[in-house]
Amino acid sequence: MAETLKIFKIGGAILDEPAQLSRFVAALAQVPGPRLLVHGGGRGASQMLMQLGLEPQLVQGRRITDAATLDIVTMFYAGKTNKQLVAGLQAAGANALGLSGADGNAIRALRRPVGAIDYGFVGDLPADAVNTGLLELLLRADVLPVLCAITHDGHGQLLNTNADTIASAVAVALAARRAVELHFCFEKDGVLADVNDNNSVIERLTAAEYAQLKAAGAVAAGMVPKLDNAFAALEAGVERVVIENALRINEPVKTVLCRS
Amino acid sequence: MAETLKIFKIGGAILDEPAQLSRFVAALAQVPGPRLLVHGGGRGASQMLMQLGLEPQLVQGRRITDAATLDIVTMFYAGKTNKQLVAGLQAAGANALGLSGADGNAIRALRRPVGAIDYGFVGDLPADAVNTGLLELLLRADVLPVLCAITHDGHGQLLNTNADTIASAVAVALAARRAVELHFCFEKDGVLADVNDNNSVIERLTAAEYAQLKAAGAVAAGMVPKLDNAFAALEAGVERVVIENALRINEPVKTVLCRS
Repeated sequence: MAETLKIFKIGGAILDEPAQLSRFVAALAQVPGPRLLVHGGGRGASQMLMQLGLEPQLVQGRRITDAATLDIVTMFYAGKTNKQLVAGLQAAGANALGLSGADGNAIRALRRPVGAIDYGFVGDLPADAVNTGLLELLLRADVLPVLCAITHDGHGQLLNTNADTIASAVAVALAARRAVELHFCFEKDGVLADVNDNNSVIERLTAAEYAQLKAAGAVAAGMVPKLDNAFAALEAGVERVVIENALRINEPVKTVLCRS
Repeated sequence: MAETLKIFKIGGAILDEPAQLSRFVAALAQVPGPRLLVHGGGRGASQMLMQLGLEPQLVQGRRITDAATLDIVTMFYAGKTNKQLVAGLQAAGANALGLSGADGNAIRALRRPVGAIDYGFVGDLPADAVNTGLLELLLRADVLPVLCAITHDGHGQLLNTNADTIASAVAVALAARRAVELHFCFEKDGVLADVNDNNSVIERLTAAEYAQLKAAGAVAAGMVPKLDNAFAALEAGVERVVIENALRINEPVKTVLCRS
Protein backbone atom coordinates (compact mmCIF):
# COMPACT_ATOMS: atom_id res chain seq x y z
CA MET A 1 0.00 0.00 0.00
CA ALA A 2 1.40 3.39 -1.02
CA GLU A 3 2.08 5.91 1.75
CA THR A 4 -0.46 8.63 2.52
CA LEU A 5 -0.09 11.56 0.12
CA LYS A 6 -0.34 15.07 1.56
CA ILE A 7 -1.59 17.66 -0.92
CA PHE A 8 -1.02 21.30 0.05
CA LYS A 9 -2.75 24.24 -1.59
CA ILE A 10 -1.45 27.77 -1.20
CA GLY A 11 -2.57 30.96 -2.84
CA GLY A 12 -3.32 34.60 -2.44
CA ALA A 13 -1.49 36.59 0.17
CA ILE A 14 1.49 34.31 0.84
CA LEU A 15 2.58 34.33 -2.80
CA ASP A 16 3.09 38.09 -2.56
CA GLU A 17 5.34 37.89 0.51
CA PRO A 18 8.76 36.43 -0.36
CA ALA A 19 9.83 36.06 3.29
CA GLN A 20 6.64 34.20 4.22
CA LEU A 21 6.83 32.09 1.10
CA SER A 22 10.37 31.04 2.02
CA ARG A 23 9.14 29.97 5.44
CA PHE A 24 6.37 27.90 3.86
CA VAL A 25 8.80 26.31 1.38
CA ALA A 26 11.19 25.34 4.19
CA ALA A 27 8.30 23.90 6.23
CA LEU A 28 6.92 21.94 3.27
CA ALA A 29 10.34 20.42 2.60
CA GLN A 30 10.27 19.14 6.21
CA VAL A 31 6.95 17.31 5.84
CA PRO A 32 7.72 13.58 5.72
CA GLY A 33 6.39 11.25 3.04
CA PRO A 34 4.91 11.96 -0.39
CA ARG A 35 3.73 15.52 -0.97
CA LEU A 36 2.17 17.53 -3.77
CA LEU A 37 1.71 21.31 -3.95
CA VAL A 38 -0.96 23.28 -5.81
CA HIS A 39 -0.59 27.05 -6.03
CA GLY A 40 -2.71 29.90 -7.27
CA GLY A 41 -1.38 33.27 -8.30
CA GLY A 42 -0.70 36.29 -6.17
CA ARG A 43 -1.36 39.92 -6.98
CA GLY A 44 1.71 39.99 -9.26
CA ALA A 45 -0.22 39.00 -12.35
CA SER A 46 -2.81 41.74 -11.79
CA GLN A 47 -0.04 44.29 -11.22
CA MET A 48 1.66 43.31 -14.46
CA LEU A 49 -1.62 43.47 -16.37
CA MET A 50 -2.05 47.03 -15.13
CA GLN A 51 1.56 47.91 -15.95
CA LEU A 52 0.89 46.72 -19.49
CA GLY A 53 -2.34 48.72 -19.63
CA LEU A 54 -4.61 45.67 -19.40
CA GLU A 55 -7.23 46.22 -16.73
CA PRO A 56 -7.89 43.00 -14.73
CA GLN A 57 -11.58 42.09 -14.83
CA LEU A 58 -13.09 40.20 -11.93
CA VAL A 59 -16.71 39.03 -11.74
CA GLN A 60 -17.77 37.54 -8.38
CA GLY A 61 -14.10 37.20 -7.46
CA ARG A 62 -13.27 35.28 -10.62
CA ARG A 63 -10.96 36.67 -13.24
CA ILE A 64 -12.29 37.11 -16.77
CA THR A 65 -9.51 35.65 -18.87
CA ASP A 66 -9.18 37.13 -22.35
CA ALA A 67 -6.28 36.08 -24.60
CA ALA A 68 -3.90 38.80 -23.38
CA THR A 69 -4.75 38.05 -19.76
CA LEU A 70 -4.22 34.33 -20.32
CA ASP A 71 -0.72 35.05 -21.67
CA ILE A 72 0.17 37.06 -18.58
CA VAL A 73 -1.30 34.63 -16.04
CA THR A 74 0.43 31.73 -17.82
CA MET A 75 3.73 33.60 -17.61
CA PHE A 76 3.17 34.42 -13.96
CA TYR A 77 1.71 31.18 -12.65
CA ALA A 78 3.49 28.60 -14.83
CA GLY A 79 6.64 30.69 -15.26
CA LYS A 80 7.67 32.95 -12.41
CA THR A 81 5.70 31.65 -9.41
CA ASN A 82 5.98 27.97 -10.30
CA LYS A 83 9.71 28.08 -11.04
CA GLN A 84 10.55 30.15 -7.96
CA LEU A 85 8.65 27.66 -5.79
CA VAL A 86 10.39 24.72 -7.47
CA ALA A 87 13.86 26.28 -7.17
CA GLY A 88 13.16 27.12 -3.51
CA LEU A 89 11.97 23.59 -2.73
CA GLN A 90 14.99 22.12 -4.51
CA ALA A 91 17.26 24.29 -2.36
CA ALA A 92 15.41 23.09 0.75
CA GLY A 93 16.02 19.46 -0.21
CA ALA A 94 12.69 18.49 -1.77
CA ASN A 95 12.81 17.18 -5.34
CA ALA A 96 10.10 19.48 -6.70
CA LEU A 97 8.97 19.44 -10.33
CA GLY A 98 6.57 22.07 -11.67
CA LEU A 99 3.62 21.23 -13.87
CA SER A 100 0.86 23.04 -15.64
CA GLY A 101 -2.09 20.91 -16.62
CA ALA A 102 -0.69 20.71 -20.15
CA ASP A 103 2.55 19.08 -18.97
CA GLY A 104 2.25 15.35 -19.46
CA ASN A 105 -1.48 16.03 -19.86
CA ALA A 106 -1.58 16.34 -16.06
CA ILE A 107 -4.95 18.14 -15.94
CA ARG A 108 -7.26 18.31 -18.91
CA ALA A 109 -10.04 20.87 -18.61
CA LEU A 110 -13.10 21.93 -20.58
CA ARG A 111 -13.45 25.57 -21.50
CA ARG A 112 -16.35 26.97 -19.50
CA PRO A 113 -19.41 27.42 -21.74
CA VAL A 114 -20.53 30.99 -22.30
CA GLY A 115 -23.61 31.67 -20.16
CA ALA A 116 -24.72 34.92 -18.56
CA ILE A 117 -21.00 35.64 -18.21
CA ASP A 118 -18.26 34.78 -20.72
CA TYR A 119 -15.34 33.94 -18.47
CA GLY A 120 -13.03 33.68 -21.47
CA PHE A 121 -10.23 31.12 -21.34
CA VAL A 122 -11.32 29.51 -18.09
CA GLY A 123 -11.33 25.75 -17.70
CA ASP A 124 -13.61 23.58 -15.57
CA LEU A 125 -12.62 20.06 -14.63
CA PRO A 126 -14.54 17.00 -15.80
CA ALA A 127 -14.51 13.86 -13.62
CA ASP A 128 -11.56 12.35 -15.54
CA ALA A 129 -9.48 15.55 -15.67
CA VAL A 130 -6.52 14.29 -13.65
CA ASN A 131 -3.77 12.10 -15.15
CA THR A 132 -3.21 9.97 -12.06
CA GLY A 133 -0.68 7.75 -13.89
CA LEU A 134 1.69 10.67 -14.44
CA LEU A 135 1.36 11.93 -10.86
CA GLU A 136 1.91 8.43 -9.43
CA LEU A 137 4.98 7.97 -11.68
CA LEU A 138 6.47 11.15 -10.24
CA LEU A 139 5.47 10.45 -6.63
CA ARG A 140 6.99 6.96 -6.79
CA ALA A 141 10.23 8.56 -8.01
CA ASP A 142 10.21 10.76 -4.86
CA VAL A 143 9.29 13.82 -6.86
CA LEU A 144 7.15 16.56 -5.29
CA PRO A 145 4.83 17.75 -8.08
CA VAL A 146 4.08 21.49 -7.99
CA LEU A 147 0.91 22.23 -9.95
CA CYS A 148 -0.03 25.73 -11.03
CA ALA A 149 -3.53 26.92 -11.89
CA ILE A 150 -3.08 26.64 -15.67
CA THR A 151 -4.68 23.70 -17.49
CA HIS A 152 -5.24 22.80 -21.16
CA ASP A 153 -8.10 21.47 -23.26
CA GLY A 154 -6.07 18.83 -25.14
CA HIS A 155 -6.57 20.77 -28.37
CA GLY A 156 -3.74 23.25 -27.86
CA GLN A 157 -5.57 25.82 -25.76
CA LEU A 158 -4.26 26.73 -22.31
CA LEU A 159 -6.92 27.59 -19.75
CA ASN A 160 -7.05 29.30 -16.36
CA THR A 161 -8.52 27.07 -13.64
CA ASN A 162 -9.20 27.82 -9.99
CA ALA A 163 -6.41 26.40 -7.82
CA ASP A 164 -8.75 25.17 -5.05
CA THR A 165 -10.65 23.23 -7.70
CA ILE A 166 -7.42 21.69 -9.01
CA ALA A 167 -6.31 20.70 -5.51
CA SER A 168 -9.64 18.99 -4.80
CA ALA A 169 -9.76 17.23 -8.15
CA VAL A 170 -6.21 15.90 -7.75
CA ALA A 171 -6.97 14.76 -4.19
CA VAL A 172 -10.15 12.97 -5.21
CA ALA A 173 -8.55 11.33 -8.26
CA LEU A 174 -5.52 10.06 -6.34
CA ALA A 175 -7.73 8.90 -3.42
CA ALA A 176 -8.77 5.99 -5.67
CA ARG A 177 -5.15 4.79 -5.50
CA ARG A 178 -3.97 5.65 -2.00
CA ALA A 179 -4.89 7.53 1.17
CA VAL A 180 -4.85 11.29 0.53
CA GLU A 181 -4.88 14.27 2.91
CA LEU A 182 -5.81 17.64 1.46
CA HIS A 183 -4.41 20.72 3.21
CA PHE A 184 -5.83 24.14 2.38
CA CYS A 185 -3.28 26.65 3.65
CA PHE A 186 -4.06 30.31 4.19
CA GLU A 187 -3.21 33.20 6.51
CA LYS A 188 -5.37 32.13 9.48
CA ASP A 189 -4.80 29.19 11.81
CA GLY A 190 -7.93 27.32 10.69
CA VAL A 191 -11.69 27.78 10.64
CA LEU A 192 -12.44 30.35 13.32
CA ALA A 193 -15.46 30.32 15.64
CA ASP A 194 -14.99 34.09 15.86
CA VAL A 195 -13.60 35.55 12.65
CA ASN A 196 -11.88 38.34 14.61
CA ASP A 197 -10.11 35.98 17.01
CA ASN A 198 -7.28 33.89 15.54
CA ASN A 199 -7.27 31.91 18.81
CA SER A 200 -10.80 30.59 18.21
CA VAL A 201 -9.76 27.78 15.86
CA ILE A 202 -12.33 24.99 15.59
CA GLU A 203 -10.18 21.86 15.90
CA ARG A 204 -12.66 19.48 14.37
CA LEU A 205 -15.64 20.21 12.15
CA THR A 206 -18.12 17.66 10.84
CA ALA A 207 -20.26 18.07 7.76
CA ALA A 208 -23.37 18.36 9.98
CA GLU A 209 -21.74 21.02 12.20
CA TYR A 210 -20.62 22.95 9.15
CA ALA A 211 -24.15 22.88 7.71
CA GLN A 212 -25.45 24.34 10.99
CA LEU A 213 -22.81 27.08 11.11
CA LYS A 214 -23.46 27.96 7.48
CA ALA A 215 -27.23 28.11 8.03
CA ALA A 216 -26.66 30.40 11.01
CA GLY A 217 -24.51 32.72 8.88
CA ALA A 218 -21.58 32.07 11.21
CA VAL A 219 -19.07 31.20 8.45
CA ALA A 220 -17.09 34.02 6.83
CA ALA A 221 -18.37 34.53 3.26
CA GLY A 222 -14.95 33.91 1.72
CA MET A 223 -14.71 30.56 3.50
CA VAL A 224 -18.00 29.15 2.19
CA PRO A 225 -16.85 28.04 -1.30
CA LYS A 226 -13.59 26.74 0.19
CA LEU A 227 -15.40 24.66 2.81
CA ASP A 228 -18.12 23.46 0.42
CA ASN A 229 -15.32 22.29 -1.86
CA ALA A 230 -13.47 20.68 1.05
CA PHE A 231 -16.47 18.69 2.31
CA ALA A 232 -17.22 17.57 -1.24
CA ALA A 233 -13.67 16.18 -1.47
CA LEU A 234 -14.19 14.29 1.81
CA GLU A 235 -17.44 12.83 0.50
CA ALA A 236 -15.61 11.77 -2.66
CA GLY A 237 -13.06 9.67 -0.79
CA VAL A 238 -10.32 12.00 0.45
CA GLU A 239 -9.21 10.71 3.86
CA ARG A 240 -8.79 14.03 5.61
CA VAL A 241 -9.15 17.71 4.78
CA VAL A 242 -7.20 20.20 6.87
CA ILE A 243 -7.56 23.98 6.96
CA GLU A 244 -4.43 25.57 8.37
CA ASN A 245 -1.97 28.44 8.41
CA ALA A 246 0.57 28.23 5.58
CA LEU A 247 3.26 29.30 8.07
CA ARG A 248 2.34 26.66 10.67
CA ILE A 249 1.85 23.46 8.69
CA ASN A 250 4.15 21.47 10.99
CA GLU A 251 2.41 22.71 14.16
CA PRO A 252 -0.65 21.11 15.78
CA VAL A 253 -3.02 24.10 15.44
CA LYS A 254 -5.42 23.54 12.52
CA THR A 255 -8.99 22.58 11.65
CA VAL A 256 -9.59 18.99 10.62
CA LEU A 257 -12.76 18.42 8.64
CA CYS A 258 -14.59 15.12 9.19
CA ARG A 259 -17.35 13.38 7.31
CA SER A 260 -19.20 12.73 10.58
CA MET B 1 19.26 -1.36 -25.69
CA ALA B 2 17.15 1.79 -25.55
CA GLU B 3 16.02 3.32 -28.84
CA THR B 4 17.94 6.22 -30.38
CA LEU B 5 16.90 9.52 -28.82
CA LYS B 6 16.44 12.51 -31.13
CA ILE B 7 17.04 15.86 -29.45
CA PHE B 8 15.76 18.92 -31.32
CA LYS B 9 16.78 22.47 -30.54
CA ILE B 10 14.78 25.43 -31.81
CA GLY B 11 15.14 29.10 -31.10
CA GLY B 12 15.14 32.56 -32.46
CA ALA B 13 12.98 33.38 -35.43
CA ILE B 14 10.57 30.45 -35.41
CA LEU B 15 9.40 31.17 -31.87
CA ASP B 16 8.12 34.55 -33.06
CA GLU B 17 6.05 33.09 -35.91
CA PRO B 18 2.99 31.21 -34.60
CA ALA B 19 2.13 29.70 -37.99
CA GLN B 20 5.66 28.36 -38.49
CA LEU B 21 5.83 27.16 -34.91
CA SER B 22 2.62 25.18 -35.44
CA ARG B 23 4.15 23.53 -38.50
CA PHE B 24 7.25 22.59 -36.49
CA VAL B 25 5.14 21.22 -33.63
CA ALA B 26 3.10 19.07 -36.02
CA ALA B 27 6.28 17.79 -37.69
CA LEU B 28 7.96 17.00 -34.36
CA ALA B 29 4.92 15.03 -33.22
CA GLN B 30 5.36 12.88 -36.38
CA VAL B 31 8.98 11.97 -35.62
CA PRO B 32 8.99 8.32 -34.52
CA GLY B 33 10.72 7.10 -31.35
CA PRO B 34 11.93 8.97 -28.28
CA ARG B 35 12.31 12.74 -28.68
CA LEU B 36 13.33 15.68 -26.55
CA LEU B 37 12.97 19.39 -27.38
CA VAL B 38 15.10 22.30 -26.18
CA HIS B 39 13.95 25.83 -26.94
CA GLY B 40 15.38 29.28 -26.56
CA GLY B 41 13.35 32.43 -26.41
CA GLY B 42 12.12 34.59 -29.22
CA ARG B 43 11.97 38.35 -29.41
CA GLY B 44 8.88 38.38 -27.15
CA ALA B 45 10.89 38.65 -23.94
CA SER B 46 12.85 41.64 -25.27
CA GLN B 47 9.63 43.29 -26.41
CA MET B 48 8.06 42.86 -23.00
CA LEU B 49 11.18 44.21 -21.27
CA MET B 50 10.90 47.33 -23.42
CA GLN B 51 7.14 47.62 -22.75
CA LEU B 52 7.96 47.56 -19.04
CA GLY B 53 10.69 50.18 -19.52
CA LEU B 54 13.55 47.72 -19.01
CA GLU B 55 16.08 48.10 -21.82
CA PRO B 56 17.49 44.70 -22.92
CA GLN B 57 21.28 44.64 -22.68
CA LEU B 58 23.23 42.41 -25.02
CA VAL B 59 27.03 42.01 -25.00
CA GLN B 60 28.46 39.97 -27.88
CA GLY B 61 24.99 38.64 -28.58
CA ARG B 62 24.46 37.49 -25.00
CA ARG B 63 21.85 38.98 -22.78
CA ILE B 64 22.96 40.58 -19.54
CA THR B 65 20.49 39.16 -17.06
CA ASP B 66 19.75 41.39 -14.08
CA ALA B 67 17.07 40.38 -11.55
CA ALA B 68 14.20 42.13 -13.37
CA THR B 69 15.30 40.65 -16.70
CA LEU B 70 15.55 37.18 -15.17
CA ASP B 71 11.94 37.47 -13.95
CA ILE B 72 10.74 38.37 -17.43
CA VAL B 73 12.75 35.72 -19.29
CA THR B 74 11.63 33.09 -16.76
CA MET B 75 8.02 34.09 -17.36
CA PHE B 76 8.49 34.03 -21.12
CA TYR B 77 10.63 30.95 -21.58
CA ALA B 78 9.38 28.71 -18.74
CA GLY B 79 5.85 30.14 -18.79
CA LYS B 80 4.45 31.31 -22.10
CA THR B 81 6.73 29.71 -24.70
CA ASN B 82 7.20 26.42 -22.88
CA LYS B 83 3.53 25.92 -22.08
CA GLN B 84 2.36 26.90 -25.57
CA LEU B 85 4.79 24.38 -27.07
CA VAL B 86 3.67 21.70 -24.63
CA ALA B 87 -0.04 22.35 -25.23
CA GLY B 88 0.56 22.31 -29.01
CA LEU B 89 2.49 19.05 -28.86
CA GLN B 90 -0.20 17.49 -26.68
CA ALA B 91 -2.81 18.49 -29.26
CA ALA B 92 -0.66 16.94 -31.98
CA GLY B 93 -0.53 13.65 -30.11
CA ALA B 94 2.90 13.85 -28.43
CA ASN B 95 2.96 13.52 -24.64
CA ALA B 96 5.08 16.61 -24.01
CA LEU B 97 6.09 17.76 -20.52
CA GLY B 98 7.83 21.09 -20.00
CA LEU B 99 10.83 21.49 -17.73
CA SER B 100 13.10 24.25 -16.58
CA GLY B 101 16.41 23.12 -15.17
CA ALA B 102 14.99 23.56 -11.66
CA ASP B 103 12.19 21.04 -12.27
CA GLY B 104 13.26 17.71 -10.83
CA ASN B 105 16.76 19.26 -10.74
CA ALA B 106 16.90 18.57 -14.49
CA ILE B 107 19.81 20.95 -15.17
CA ARG B 108 21.94 22.38 -12.43
CA ALA B 109 24.14 25.29 -13.47
CA LEU B 110 26.83 27.45 -11.93
CA ARG B 111 26.39 31.19 -12.01
CA ARG B 112 28.98 32.60 -14.39
CA PRO B 113 31.82 34.24 -12.42
CA VAL B 114 32.13 38.00 -12.83
CA GLY B 115 35.07 38.75 -15.15
CA ALA B 116 35.51 41.63 -17.58
CA ILE B 117 31.73 41.41 -18.02
CA ASP B 118 29.18 40.68 -15.30
CA TYR B 119 26.57 38.68 -17.16
CA GLY B 120 24.27 38.72 -14.14
CA PHE B 121 22.08 35.70 -13.52
CA VAL B 122 23.57 33.55 -16.26
CA GLY B 123 24.37 29.90 -15.66
CA ASP B 124 27.13 27.80 -17.22
CA LEU B 125 26.92 24.03 -17.16
CA PRO B 126 29.42 21.86 -15.28
CA ALA B 127 30.12 18.33 -16.57
CA ASP B 128 27.49 16.80 -14.25
CA ALA B 129 24.78 19.40 -14.89
CA VAL B 130 22.20 17.06 -16.42
CA ASN B 131 19.95 14.80 -14.33
CA THR B 132 19.95 11.86 -16.72
CA GLY B 133 17.90 9.72 -14.31
CA LEU B 134 14.94 12.11 -14.48
CA LEU B 135 15.10 12.43 -18.27
CA GLU B 136 15.34 8.65 -18.72
CA LEU B 137 12.38 8.15 -16.35
CA LEU B 138 10.29 10.45 -18.52
CA LEU B 139 11.52 9.06 -21.85
CA ARG B 140 10.76 5.51 -20.75
CA ALA B 141 7.23 6.64 -19.88
CA ASP B 142 6.86 7.89 -23.50
CA VAL B 143 7.06 11.49 -22.40
CA LEU B 144 8.61 14.12 -24.69
CA PRO B 145 10.55 16.46 -22.38
CA VAL B 146 10.51 20.12 -23.46
CA LEU B 147 13.38 21.99 -21.85
CA CYS B 148 13.54 25.76 -21.76
CA ALA B 149 16.67 27.86 -21.34
CA ILE B 150 16.19 28.47 -17.61
CA THR B 151 18.32 26.53 -15.12
CA HIS B 152 18.96 26.76 -11.37
CA ASP B 153 21.97 26.65 -9.07
CA GLY B 154 20.51 24.24 -6.51
CA HIS B 155 20.48 27.02 -3.91
CA GLY B 156 17.21 28.61 -4.98
CA GLN B 157 18.52 30.87 -7.73
CA LEU B 158 17.14 30.55 -11.26
CA LEU B 159 19.65 31.25 -14.04
CA ASN B 160 19.49 32.00 -17.75
CA THR B 161 21.48 29.51 -19.84
CA ASN B 162 22.10 29.41 -23.59
CA ALA B 163 19.72 26.91 -25.22
CA ASP B 164 22.36 25.52 -27.64
CA THR B 165 24.54 24.79 -24.62
CA ILE B 166 21.68 23.01 -22.87
CA ALA B 167 20.89 20.92 -25.96
CA SER B 168 24.52 19.82 -26.28
CA ALA B 169 24.91 19.08 -22.59
CA VAL B 170 21.75 16.97 -22.53
CA ALA B 171 22.82 15.12 -25.69
CA VAL B 172 26.29 14.37 -24.32
CA ALA B 173 24.98 13.29 -20.91
CA LEU B 174 22.35 10.94 -22.35
CA ALA B 175 24.82 9.56 -24.91
CA ALA B 176 26.40 7.64 -22.03
CA ARG B 177 23.12 5.68 -21.78
CA ARG B 178 21.86 5.34 -25.34
CA ALA B 179 22.45 6.49 -28.92
CA VAL B 180 21.62 10.18 -29.27
CA GLU B 181 21.09 12.38 -32.34
CA LEU B 182 21.25 16.13 -31.85
CA HIS B 183 19.28 18.27 -34.32
CA PHE B 184 19.92 22.01 -34.43
CA CYS B 185 16.94 23.50 -36.26
CA PHE B 186 16.95 26.96 -37.75
CA GLU B 187 15.59 28.90 -40.70
CA LYS B 188 18.00 27.59 -43.36
CA ASP B 189 18.12 24.08 -44.81
CA GLY B 190 21.54 23.26 -43.35
CA VAL B 191 25.13 24.50 -43.51
CA LEU B 192 25.38 26.39 -46.79
CA ALA B 193 28.42 26.38 -49.09
CA ASP B 194 27.15 29.77 -50.30
CA VAL B 195 25.40 31.70 -47.54
CA ASN B 196 23.19 33.44 -50.12
CA ASP B 197 22.03 30.22 -51.76
CA ASN B 198 19.66 28.05 -49.72
CA ASN B 199 20.17 25.31 -52.35
CA SER B 200 23.87 24.99 -51.52
CA VAL B 201 23.38 22.74 -48.50
CA ILE B 202 26.48 20.72 -47.59
CA GLU B 203 25.03 17.25 -47.00
CA ARG B 204 27.91 15.91 -44.96
CA LEU B 205 30.62 17.80 -43.12
CA THR B 206 33.53 16.26 -41.25
CA ALA B 207 35.45 17.93 -38.45
CA ALA B 208 38.48 18.26 -40.75
CA GLU B 209 36.40 19.82 -43.54
CA TYR B 210 34.82 22.21 -41.07
CA ALA B 211 38.25 23.25 -39.77
CA GLN B 212 39.31 24.04 -43.35
CA LEU B 213 36.16 26.04 -44.11
CA LYS B 214 36.51 27.96 -40.88
CA ALA B 215 40.18 28.74 -41.53
CA ALA B 216 39.22 29.99 -45.00
CA GLY B 217 36.57 32.28 -43.48
CA ALA B 218 33.92 30.44 -45.47
CA VAL B 219 31.56 29.84 -42.52
CA ALA B 220 28.99 32.51 -41.64
CA ALA B 221 30.04 34.20 -38.39
CA GLY B 222 26.78 33.31 -36.63
CA MET B 223 27.28 29.64 -37.45
CA VAL B 224 30.76 29.32 -35.92
CA PRO B 225 29.78 28.95 -32.24
CA LYS B 226 26.90 26.66 -33.25
CA LEU B 227 29.18 24.38 -35.27
CA ASP B 228 32.03 24.45 -32.72
CA ASN B 229 29.49 23.37 -30.13
CA ALA B 230 28.08 20.69 -32.48
CA PHE B 231 31.46 19.11 -33.26
CA ALA B 232 32.34 19.16 -29.56
CA ALA B 233 29.15 17.16 -28.88
CA LEU B 234 30.14 14.63 -31.55
CA GLU B 235 33.58 14.28 -30.01
CA ALA B 236 31.94 13.73 -26.62
CA GLY B 237 29.94 10.74 -27.81
CA VAL B 238 26.80 12.02 -29.55
CA GLU B 239 26.10 9.68 -32.46
CA ARG B 240 25.01 12.26 -34.99
CA VAL B 241 24.59 16.02 -35.17
CA VAL B 242 22.21 17.40 -37.77
CA ILE B 243 21.79 21.03 -38.86
CA GLU B 244 18.42 21.49 -40.54
CA ASN B 245 15.43 23.66 -41.26
CA ALA B 246 12.90 23.67 -38.41
CA LEU B 247 10.13 23.46 -41.01
CA ARG B 248 11.65 20.48 -42.86
CA ILE B 249 12.75 18.09 -40.12
CA ASN B 250 10.98 15.14 -41.76
CA GLU B 251 12.51 15.85 -45.21
CA PRO B 252 15.90 14.56 -46.42
CA VAL B 253 17.56 17.96 -46.96
CA LYS B 254 19.94 18.71 -44.05
CA THR B 255 23.60 18.78 -43.06
CA VAL B 256 24.91 15.78 -41.14
CA LEU B 257 28.09 16.43 -39.19
CA CYS B 258 30.57 13.55 -38.90
CA ARG B 259 33.58 12.99 -36.71
CA SER B 260 35.63 11.92 -39.74
